[in-house]
Amino acid sequence: MTKLRLGVLASGTGSNLQSILDACAQGRIPAQVAVVISNLTSAKALDRAREAGVRAILLPHQLSPSREAYDEQLVSVLREHEVELVCLAGFMRLITPVLLRAFENRILNIHPALLPSFPGLHAVRQALKAGVKISGCTVHVVDEGTDTGPILVQAAVPVLEGDDEESLAARILAQEHRCYPWALRLWAEGRVALEGRRVRIATARGDPTRQILSPALQGEQP
Amino acid sequence: MTKLRLGVLASGTGSNLQSILDACAQGRIPAQVAVVISNLTSAKALDRAREAGVRAILLPHQLSPSREAYDEQLVSVLREHEVELVCLAGFMRLITPVLLRAFENRILNIHPALLPSFPGLHAVRQALKAGVKISGCTVHVVDEGTDTGPILVQAAVPVLEGDDEESLAARILAQEHRCYPWALRLWAEGRVALEGRRVRIATARGDPTRQILSPALQGEQP
Repeated sequence: MTKLRLGVLASGTGSNLQSILDACAQGRIPAQVAVVISNLTSAKALDRAREAGVRAILLPHQLSPSREAYDEQLVSVLREHEVELVCLAGFMRLITPVLLRAFENRILNIHPALLPSFPGLHAVRQALKAGVKISGCTVHVVDEGTDTGPILVQAAVPVLEGDDEESLAARILAQEHRCYPWALRLWAEGRVALEGRRVRIATARGDPTRQILSPALQGEQP
Repeated sequence: MTKLRLGVLASGTGSNLQSILDACAQGRIPAQVAVVISNLTSAKALDRAREAGVRAILLPHQLSPSREAYDEQLVSVLREHEVELVCLAGFMRLITPVLLRAFENRILNIHPALLPSFPGLHAVRQALKAGVKISGCTVHVVDEGTDTGPILVQAAVPVLEGDDEESLAARILAQEHRCYPWALRLWAEGRVALEGRRVRIATARGDPTRQILSPALQGEQP
């Protein structure tokens, strides 16, 4: 089976990138990271890529005259590495139609909330402020809106008494590290079908997808 | 311990009412249903109340000149039965400030979605249309907005491939039947504190609250 070629864009510590690299290296998903691109020299993501033997490319955005020009560079590097699916993993740049059109319906993102609740920046802070008792994370296809694209995978976590932004973000991040590889596995196995706003997932018998999608609620009666 | 006196307003089949009646009868929550009020003669909720030996009052809204006049009648009946906490359980009437002020911060509602996602009518249909992979239910304090009040309890359920409105609503309803008694137990035990938009819940050691609030995600790695 030919491995799906991924391009990962990251600006931060790259922990989601790491979960993807690990899942690929361990053969848990039929994919490989063909290239990691960051806009920041400080991005630990680039170190992680190099350690995994993956091409790591720094593409500073300051050198580009416009967002569109920057995205043209991105597209060029992604194509050069024959990327089939683009994964945004903490990439702190707004992307433009230049990238969206070049990889139409082939860009994924992960967001630390149960979309459509709390799109945009500071999702964890928004959730705490709203006083929800359950939050989570979402892997979705990127469209022209802000965190509005079709949803592939979600996982829920409790918001506990005494949580602050850091503790809740950490609890959500642990689920992100499970959900992104999952979404990529579904994609790489050809089990994802977009139908408008809905994403149909072909499930196989005995396959644990249901479980990861399904918070099993097992509390006792009051 | 004096039992908290509940007034339940219901228009439909009253399955949430039943879960409350059962929890009270079995001593699982230190509360009693003092009165059940419905605006519809057809409401099965009234039969359920009578079967449980609870006062069942039909208050047809057609006889009232205005929503406010109707709510004055509601307030009058609730007061007559010394109700301390009002529970909306499928009550298909918009309530007015007349009721809201008479029982300020003492009216609860249950909604079949993980608020703030999908407020208002047809929440389950909205969730399916949006293509979310996780939905759920929310017990919240009623304020002047539509499903915008402080959140007490939430539970999550998976949206499965092939779900229609009926199957998803049934899965959510099963959680509603756990969440409403839970919220009432927390309230009746004096463990709920409103702090602006947030609801603080005092948790006791070994107490299963965390569990019901917490979808335990136990899926395997991909």
